[in-house]
Amino acid sequence: MRVLGIIVEYNPFHNGHLYHLRKAKELVKPDYTVAVMSGSFCQRGEPAIIDKFSRAEIALQNGVDVVFELPFVYALQDAGGFAKGAVWLLEKMNVVTDLVFGSESGNLSFLNKIADVMINQPYPFPEIMKEELKKGYSFPNARKYALMKYFERTGEMNPREVLKIEKSNDILGVEYVRSLKELGSKINVQLIKRVGADEKDKVFKGKFPSATSVRNMIFKGDWSGVSRAVPDSSLQIISRELNEGRGPVTLSQLEEILLAKLRLSSKKELQMLYGFSEGIDVRFSNCALKTGDLEEFFNCVKAKRFTMSKIRRLSLYALFELKQDLIVQCNEKGPQYLRVLGFTNNGRKLLSIVKRKASVPVVSVCSLYKKILSKALKNKEGRFEVDEKLFEHQLRLDIKSTSIHSLLFPSKSERNGERDFRIPPIMV
Amino acid sequence: MRVLGIIVEYNPFHNGHLYHLRKAKELVKPDYTVAVMSGSFCQRGEPAIIDKFSRAEIALQNGVDVVFELPFVYALQDAGGFAKGAVWLLEKMNVVTDLVFGSESGNLSFLNKIADVMINQPYPFPEIMKEELKKGYSFPNARKYALMKYFERTGEMNPREVLKIEKSNDILGVEYVRSLKELGSKINVQLIKRVGADEKDKVFKGKFPSATSVRNMIFKGDWSGVSRAVPDSSLQIISRELNEGRGPVTLSQLEEILLAKLRLSSKKELQMLYGFSEGIDVRFSNCALKTGDLEEFFNCVKAKRFTMSKIRRLSLYALFELKQDLIVQCNEKGPQYLRVLGFTNNGRKLLSIVKRKASVPVVSVCSLYKKILSKALKNKEGRFEVDEKLFEHQLRLDIKSTSIHSLLFPSKSERNGERDFRIPPIMV
Repeated sequence: MRVLGIIVEYNPFHNGHLYHLRKAKELVKPDYTVAVMSGSFCQRGEPAIIDKFSRAEIALQNGVDVVFELPFVYALQDAGGFAKGAVWLLEKMNVVTDLVFGSESGNLSFLNKIADVMINQPYPFPEIMKEELKKGYSFPNARKYALMKYFERTGEMNPREVLKIEKSNDILGVEYVRSLKELGSKINVQLIKRVGADEKDKVFKGKFPSATSVRNMIFKGDWSGVSRAVPDSSLQIISRELNEGRGPVTLSQLEEILLAKLRLSSKKELQMLYGFSEGIDVRFSNCALKTGDLEEFFNCVKAKRFTMSKIRRLSLYALFELKQDLIVQCNEKGPQYLRVLGFTNNGRKLLSIVKRKASVPVVSVCSLYKKILSKALKNKEGRFEVDEKLFEHQLRLDIKSTSIHSLLFPSKSERNGERDFRIPPIMV
Repeated sequence: MRVLGIIVEYNPFHNGHLYHLRKAKELVKPDYTVAVMSGSFCQRGEPAIIDKFSRAEIALQNGVDVVFELPFVYALQDAGGFAKGAVWLLEKMNVVTDLVFGSESGNLSFLNKIADVMINQPYPFPEIMKEELKKGYSFPNARKYALMKYFERTGEMNPREVLKIEKSNDILGVEYVRSLKELGSKINVQLIKRVGADEKDKVFKGKFPSATSVRNMIFKGDWSGVSRAVPDSSLQIISRELNEGRGPVTLSQLEEILLAKLRLSSKKELQMLYGFSEGIDVRFSNCALKTGDLEEFFNCVKAKRFTMSKIRRLSLYALFELKQDLIVQCNEKGPQYLRVLGFTNNGRKLLSIVKRKASVPVVSVCSLYKKILSKALKNKEGRFEVDEKLFEHQLRLDIKSTSIHSLLFPSKSERNGERDFRIPPIMV
């Protein structure tokens, strides 16, 4: 049995995603395809433009058999934490045989080499890295320059090749490979060379659109543009969600909520948060008091060593009170459950296998989570490795973040919370 | 030297307030008049329609010599806590000789009698009170019926007279008298019989408007109505604030901030809050998840035994995390400072006397508060009774609530926070 795993955000699902999905299935010829997908918030530090249930529905209509939610605590981390959470989720299913991901370079041996340096930290890489960070570069940039200098000295690889990992898919790719190695995973990896636009591109470029450009078309109401950029099923569901007042959801709608939260938080409280080191707490406090405009706030806290995505993520850490010790624990123990957002008929068969094999419990009906947890804690088969508190903490954050996401819906009558307890898994 | 104290909200200052102020000064013929005024939020559980500095400015232009801010922790309590904080602030100045307040009944001996019952709790009043509360009445209503039954039994007073304390001024009046007695104050009390509309009336009624009706005229842009309801100086300043984008501020603007806060708070956190007993925590949690509309939320949590003002106040306790133990301590120790919002030339003289006599420090320049606090803690003259932590906690809440108030300004460019640190006392 071959089970293909993919790691996605689908914010929203467009033709580039469809191309990738089909290519991956061509490569692996899987019996089943599972996707690990961000939930209500995405790795760029933004709420997803439509809710996770609809995004799962689109995925299922386009060839994915089961969609699992990447817990909020991983979806909102940098490339390293995001990749680790997603890969670990695939690994904990104990059925996934293959992982396929997009790559700008398309060069797996190259990603492997870099991942090895990151894991083994061979001399003198750590020293070079420290020096680059001291210069004030962002972490990804410092690492890029450090790798170049390292390969220059060792001659292991052409240093200029490293420049290619600037693109987001390769950055993630290195982290996927690294996480698989660290977990001792047997999942087989293949790459698909990306042919579309970069995620960051705000307009069409080449054959496929970027998700950013599709979101911008949706904001502008450019539906002819959207219809050229996404498959029909995606268009239908996006339109349905917007017509019913459940989208588009944007970060700007969090403006008052975020700034109020920061104005009400003490510096002590901010200091406890993940990533709020080196004076970031003071910066966030001061900037939230300086302006009532979210864009101005982001520009105010922006520093050379932080990307804008990181700034947005840090703001969300403050809103959801993601503390340092929680994230450390999450990254040590991995995801504590497999939350099913939806499945196809074919996926249902896989799910029954996963339920028997996985090392964490499957949560299909979220309102039953306490029962599911207590059964897993009894652990009659000795198969589960579950930390009770961490399970609750991770799942409560998925539910809470979804309650905040729905509070941002344009239609007031749709803004009720805890939709996780009311919406059963999508079946396609 | 006679110093008249009055307790006000001026939200906003109207002709009825002017009438009251003039009458009070006629009665007392004071050398100085000081007002204790709510800051950024009012006792109805709403943000003030314009900021505290402008409201102080209007008061100073109309005959008040010094305006002190009633700390947030008292301004947001029910009649008992509000009155206690305000009266205690006047008492701690050690210069106020007279307190005059409005009263629907105009009957001081009657207010005195009720206050005595509340203080001394003579048999069988406590038992009757318990029975009435069990019936599910709101606290003010239960007390009203209990007093009636008590006076019926004792024959001390005509029970039907008690019905008169239904009006907000008499409810507060009883609490003022009660607090003065409890503090052993020597401040002399006089009443002015109110001739205007009730605070609750949404339209003009009789000679004077209610503050609610003036606010409604402002929301509707009925400026000819406003100009008939408020003195010219008040009209000028209200218009200036609105023209500059600093008003009107309404509770509805807190909709997303409040609901987000409640959706993100755990039941455990809510249980720690002041007044969140008897399942109110569960009610608030559930209702915040049920709806994204603030009015619907208030209706959802509304119970027979709570007034709408109380529900709004409880929501603000959640937003500002006012914990049970904080309020208990505040009500045991009283206000820890005298925050000056503004003064006239005449008021400046009084202020220099207050600075020498008061039992808590005067905070005129808020940005210097740490210096002022540490000087008060040294307490060289042995005059001060200050609790360091409580001082900080009370003042930080005044500052924070003002930072949230300004976040609600219509003009984004005016929404910066910590205005307390930038705006010096208003001088008129």
